[in-house]
Amino acid sequence: MKLTLDQIQSQNNYQSAEHNRSFEFLAESLEKKGIDVESLISKLQELQIAIPSWALGTGGTRFGRFSGGGEPATLIQKIQDVGILHALNQSSNAVSLHIPWDIPSDYQAIKDSVSEVGIGFDAVNSNTFQDQAHQAHSYKFGSLANSEQAVRDLAVEHNKKVIEIGEKLGSKALTVWLADGSSFPGQHSLRKALENTHLSLQEIYKAVPDDWKLLIEYKPYEPSFYSTVIQDWGTSFLLANKLGKKAYTMVDLGHHLPNTNIEQIVATLMTEGKLGGFHFNDSKYGDDDLTVGSVKPYQLFLIFQELVKGFKETNNPPLSWMIDASHNLKDPMEDLIQSVQAIKLAYAQALLVDSKSLEAAQEVHDVAGAQEILQDAYRTDLRPLLAEAMRRSGGAIDPIKAFRSLKVRESLINERGLKSIASGL
Amino acid sequence: MKLTLDQIQSQNNYQSAEHNRSFEFLAESLEKKGIDVESLISKLQELQIAIPSWALGTGGTRFGRFSGGGEPATLIQKIQDVGILHALNQSSNAVSLHIPWDIPSDYQAIKDSVSEVGIGFDAVNSNTFQDQAHQAHSYKFGSLANSEQAVRDLAVEHNKKVIEIGEKLGSKALTVWLADGSSFPGQHSLRKALENTHLSLQEIYKAVPDDWKLLIEYKPYEPSFYSTVIQDWGTSFLLANKLGKKAYTMVDLGHHLPNTNIEQIVATLMTEGKLGGFHFNDSKYGDDDLTVGSVKPYQLFLIFQELVKGFKETNNPPLSWMIDASHNLKDPMEDLIQSVQAIKLAYAQALLVDSKSLEAAQEVHDVAGAQEILQDAYRTDLRPLLAEAMRRSGGAIDPIKAFRSLKVRESLINERGLKSIASGL
Amino acid sequence: MKLTLDQIQSQNNYQSAEHNRSFEFLAESLEKKGIDVESLISKLQELQIAIPSWALGTGGTRFGRFSGGGEPATLIQKIQDVGILHALNQSSNAVSLHIPWDIPSDYQAIKDSVSEVGIGFDAVNSNTFQDQAHQAHSYKFGSLANSEQAVRDLAVEHNKKVIEIGEKLGSKALTVWLADGSSFPGQHSLRKALENTHLSLQEIYKAVPDDWKLLIEYKPYEPSFYSTVIQDWGTSFLLANKLGKKAYTMVDLGHHLPNTNIEQIVATLMTEGKLGGFHFNDSKYGDDDLTVGSVKPYQLFLIFQELVKGFKETNNPPLSWMIDASHNLKDPMEDLIQSVQAIKLAYAQALLVDSKSLEAAQEVHDVAGAQEILQDAYRTDLRPLLAEAMRRSGGAIDPIKAFRSLKVRESLINERGLKSIASGL
Amino acid sequence: MKLTLDQIQSQNNYQSAEHNRSFEFLAESLEKKGIDVESLISKLQELQIAIPSWALGTGGTRFGRFSGGGEPATLIQKIQDVGILHALNQSSNAVSLHIPWDIPSDYQAIKDSVSEVGIGFDAVNSNTFQDQAHQAHSYKFGSLANSEQAVRDLAVEHNKKVIEIGEKLGSKALTVWLADGSSFPGQHSLRKALENTHLSLQEIYKAVPDDWKLLIEYKPYEPSFYSTVIQDWGTSFLLANKLGKKAYTMVDLGHHLPNTNIEQIVATLMTEGKLGGFHFNDSKYGDDDLTVGSVKPYQLFLIFQELVKGFKETNNPPLSWMIDASHNLKDPMEDLIQSVQAIKLAYAQALLVDSKSLEAAQEVHDVAGAQEILQDAYRTDLRPLLAEAMRRSGGAIDPIKAFRSLKVRESLINERGLKSIASGL
Repeated sequence: MKLTLDQIQSQNNYQSAEHNRSFEFLAESLEKKGIDVESLISKLQELQIAIPSWALGTGGTRFGRFSGGGEPATLIQKIQDVGILHALNQSSNAVSLHIPWDIPSDYQAIKDSVSEVGIGFDAVNSNTFQDQAHQAHSYKFGSLANSEQAVRDLAVEHNKKVIEIGEKLGSKALTVWLADGSSFPGQHSLRKALENTHLSLQEIYKAVPDDWKLLIEYKPYEPSFYSTVIQDWGTSFLLANKLGKKAYTMVDLGHHLPNTNIEQIVATLMTEGKLGGFHFNDSKYGDDDLTVGSVKPYQLFLIFQELVKGFKETNNPPLSWMIDASHNLKDPMEDLIQSVQAIKLAYAQALLVDSKSLEAAQEVHDVAGAQEILQDAYRTDLRPLLAEAMRRSGGAIDPIKAFRSLKVRESLINERGLKSIASGL
Repeated sequence: MKLTLDQIQSQNNYQSAEHNRSFEFLAESLEKKGIDVESLISKLQELQIAIPSWALGTGGTRFGRFSGGGEPATLIQKIQDVGILHALNQSSNAVSLHIPWDIPSDYQAIKDSVSEVGIGFDAVNSNTFQDQAHQAHSYKFGSLANSEQAVRDLAVEHNKKVIEIGEKLGSKALTVWLADGSSFPGQHSLRKALENTHLSLQEIYKAVPDDWKLLIEYKPYEPSFYSTVIQDWGTSFLLANKLGKKAYTMVDLGHHLPNTNIEQIVATLMTEGKLGGFHFNDSKYGDDDLTVGSVKPYQLFLIFQELVKGFKETNNPPLSWMIDASHNLKDPMEDLIQSVQAIKLAYAQALLVDSKSLEAAQEVHDVAGAQEILQDAYRTDLRPLLAEAMRRSGGAIDPIKAFRSLKVRESLINERGLKSIASGL
Repeated sequence: MKLTLDQIQSQNNYQSAEHNRSFEFLAESLEKKGIDVESLISKLQELQIAIPSWALGTGGTRFGRFSGGGEPATLIQKIQDVGILHALNQSSNAVSLHIPWDIPSDYQAIKDSVSEVGIGFDAVNSNTFQDQAHQAHSYKFGSLANSEQAVRDLAVEHNKKVIEIGEKLGSKALTVWLADGSSFPGQHSLRKALENTHLSLQEIYKAVPDDWKLLIEYKPYEPSFYSTVIQDWGTSFLLANKLGKKAYTMVDLGHHLPNTNIEQIVATLMTEGKLGGFHFNDSKYGDDDLTVGSVKPYQLFLIFQELVKGFKETNNPPLSWMIDASHNLKDPMEDLIQSVQAIKLAYAQALLVDSKSLEAAQEVHDVAGAQEILQDAYRTDLRPLLAEAMRRSGGAIDPIKAFRSLKVRESLINERGLKSIASGL
Repeated sequence: MKLTLDQIQSQNNYQSAEHNRSFEFLAESLEKKGIDVESLISKLQELQIAIPSWALGTGGTRFGRFSGGGEPATLIQKIQDVGILHALNQSSNAVSLHIPWDIPSDYQAIKDSVSEVGIGFDAVNSNTFQDQAHQAHSYKFGSLANSEQAVRDLAVEHNKKVIEIGEKLGSKALTVWLADGSSFPGQHSLRKALENTHLSLQEIYKAVPDDWKLLIEYKPYEPSFYSTVIQDWGTSFLLANKLGKKAYTMVDLGHHLPNTNIEQIVATLMTEGKLGGFHFNDSKYGDDDLTVGSVKPYQLFLIFQELVKGFKETNNPPLSWMIDASHNLKDPMEDLIQSVQAIKLAYAQALLVDSKSLEAAQEVHDVAGAQEILQDAYRTDLRPLLAEAMRRSGGAIDPIKAFRSLKVRESLINERGLKSIASGL
């Protein structure tokens, strides 16, 4: 299944009157404040957020999984789904592969399928947290951090293989999320596990092409429940510094202890030029992997406020942007649309912040004034701006509504069946 | 110092053109959706949030306190400050006294001063967490929960005296925040402390007039660091149930463990008819007592969404509304204005929720659709509606701006001096 | 496979000299303090902790599961495993069935197999958090709390069936752990979900035999990530109170928000006569389901200190005791042995607390003295006392060592194969 | 007041029979396992934990402070108190000064008073979180991180002055705990605040003598409630690395977000050679500053386990050890004695860990076995070993009991009065 521009424009026609009214009012309001609306629109158009290949199917918890219908059973079907998303919002022009869940067999076919829907390949992701059938050694007690050389070698080789696949596809980054850790005090040596991880990453780093990035995630717990080897940004940053200039820290919004000030981590990493990118999601308790912006939209805005500032004030290189959520209850495609909308809305709000006035308020310690400035941007309803940016790029004014009106899921169920289950986790 | 209607209207004149433009656009948008704008406005006008007498001075932490200038040194000055706030936003028509920090000496003078500024008295608050000079027994190891009968008696008597004061002023509720607890395992018997608290509250309850409420706060920790006797809503609810129909649970937004779903507590208490009211503030880590809406505005909206639903669907009696924040860095009056704005904005957003569509979405488990409905209300910029409600009541379109333009703080410093320090904590 | 008394005694012989030396020193030390050692031993002998039928297999996380070998593939094999555990420590004389993972087909065979290994049946557990094949309605969006009557009816019927099964086996309690909740604000009505749960539990309650207990668990999150219908002890207690005297609150140690004072919850519930029992495990972050006592042994002691006090001072009825852990990395049987040891050690320490001196210290607010008394009990090495209690009951002095020396796991792998996988989750 | 060796030995006489019995049993048990008891004893004797000058008085919270009696009102009295503690436990041979609370006026008198009681000076502590009377600029909005150069200069000068004082006294380290941060989003630029802090620390670093250490603390929140400039170990480590080899990270046990794995931070910092020392305390919720070992004794043991390993396996330089607690309810001196006992007990337990067997278990991923080894050390009652170490050094077998029997507090009240209040906070 594929969505055409015509289909989307026909949907837009229903909403264009109301959209125009709202957009005109907003544009006028912004221009009165001296804001360049066209520049905002083009920045919004540019921001593209990759979709991971595992995100197109229904997720689950350790207590079970309730599948939806019409899930993509093959990599090509997953690419088609991303194509549909991109047609709707013109904001997800890349897919991020997870190996070995989605190893391409016929590269040409895969490349054809992505170019057919107008997208490309983002970072490739390795997986050393599960054993594959007939695997020589088990990752049960760790992979890159394992005390056994043979296991580490296997995990390093896997990462090298993922890089090779990525090169064939045109990826420019390898994301390493390392589940290694321990669930009990004494299970392994915390120091040796870190040192082994460093050694393993050094091997992988050597295989990273010069125009690639190595993105190192951190996470405090789960699936290990006492310690994770790369437990926080500090550990990831320490490793990235030791490895070299191709290595960066990757921030997953759900991978933090309660109450962590994530935006400060973002600010610090950008100051040091070591922020590599984001895995976006939202959460209330742990790594809940909920729709972006569904629980803490103000935090998302504050993170983007640091990003917008960092882009202007630091030399941090461009970032990788990816959704990483688990769609347990919602239609995965609707979930992804809502996430992308939330990200772009937060970006728009951050772009709107009157940074000159903010700096002036900060200079004189006008704390209440600084809050007024931030919240003025946050409270402004920028949805018409976002809709306009998408519309101009050929996307839908209201992508969720279009997805439903165009009966995308129903068509996919027709094509693939009600019991189709996504490959992967 | 006192603000006149003229002063405020002169400020409004500067903003009326832009305000009218925004309000008209918003009103038209809402009416297109079938929303009764006038009804929204009158509901917003009705909501009044009390100001505690301790909130007009600069707060502090255990590491110190940095005073501002022009703080009110007497109860009458505090009342004047609340009068100024109310003149600005027409939303704080009551002051809530803390005893013994603000014991009226001349009741007639106090009553005259409140009626002069058009406000009244809300709940009275007792304090058994500090020793007063020449106190017969110390609260160091607890008050209502103390294992010593003499200490409990002293604390009960204090609460009775607070009720008496409240009766003279026209208050209709006693708020009990109990700091009792333990900082070390074994310090006291957890069971006996609860039983003693119950017995003490029973004595106090007897003295509560029939048309009053007894509002029981809960808090997990601080100033006790191992256990607090009334540690959570469950304990407060248990006590309120045992005491009788005049007793209710009071929710302070900062008094929860990390990640608590506060809106669910609100929903449960309303279902049971036992929600008594709120102490509003915001926080990122603990009982940080920050400006309402400055950290988690979406949570505030979700709480109000439960309140609006509860008002419609349950028999829970009307609530006490009060700010309870600590103004360590901002001008306390600006902080209070921002807090009241945030509360009313959240209320407006909650009123806007299309509850029929939401219920329909819930009925068919349309999770993404339900989120769209909630966030549509939340993302709508309702500040013009709020401004219109305040303007019509005689308040300022932008109370913070008016506060600054009218140089209120400067005038207070002129009147009271730069080194004036608020009485109380 | 079955362990004989002879096998265990032969193991004990190796350790009896060193054990006797330690026990004699300890007994003498305790007697000097006026402690009745024989009474302690018999109390330790009496404490029996049930093993759930799902705990004999390797657990997992949402990221995967790494099976061990020799796992019990049938209910009878699970019963054999509990028999082995009980032979080793004489402390687990009951198995707790999870329905539908372990529905007995031939009741007589099942009853024979338990009596053969000298154990019985503890509480039965219902499961409405997973769909079974060919289920008429799905629990994806809730079971007892579902807005659809048909789903609620299905879930109520399941619970009634579980009670029937339990009656045939001689169980005396039904444990309800309800995963119902929501992962997004607005997904369902928090108030209606609670009311529906209440109605459903009323139906189940009617089917609970008079000499049974209905044990209601609570949990703040997972698998729902925004709200859980029975989110905390307060909600469970509220429901148990409404249902009647057969209903009690069940405490799972892992089901709490960060930093919760669990021992205070235990104290409160016992004061109210509504504590039903425990699901024991340990955790550092969330519901990590680790070996009891492996992370927070002092908290476990403090909980038992409240239990020992509560047994003396309240009328709370006897409790259900059960392990509820997930053995992802350890041999499940070793994990269970360690858990039972930790529970009984904490119980022994709590029994040792000099409660008279403690109360005297509390009376005079001697906080440092109270801590000395508690920690004196906790720091005393009571392992010889526990070993003696087990030895006298016919168990092993050191059950883990005996499990290994007797090569239990190797025998089970021989019997069942390396790839045997436990039925259930 | 001063305690003599005779006084202490007379106390020991009462307990020596029982002590000898316990010690002999323990020594024999350890020797049977091949453990060198004499070596353990001498290591325990060597460990000395400094006492901060502010810890001798009663602490408080933002809600108040309940003074005890006989508090030291002068620096010399504080030194006398440390002398008494050291006489009792022979484990606190240094005092750590906080400037400006305890600025020496007569250096010779101060030095005489410390040598009279056999102690010395540990790290000096600067304070830029409070304004002193007549201070040219305020630290209300930050000190080293302040956007105003003049304020930063003032704070840098203060630190330089503290170093000068330390040099006169013989200190070898400056501890910087920086309260700088923000309580509201937007209050200051997160990036600039970090950069300003770096610049300020560079100035201070230049003034740090070559044989000194600069110890940089971190803390996530309080007194700032949105962000702290040095929020975590990663930020402290980043700054210490940039500053140079004299700079180290200082770990305060209470300065972490909920559930942080502190022992892993310790392991990582030692691997990098950047662990500078500890501020010891315990906590359940936040920076509760409770008696060491009173809430999480197992965590303390696990931290010491990493320290003992790190001392053997890394080149991390020797550490600064200091108590940093707030004695709100206990007699401060009793609290400090309990804290030192808990630290040394944890150290003894960690020394007892059979590291060879542990490594062997780790090598083969014997998770249950590794836990048995750790807990065997932790569960062994090592109090007789600690008592023997103190006794041999001239201290008391049971310092708390001796403190009480010798009526130290009563004597201090006689000397100083019941209303004496400690200088400082």
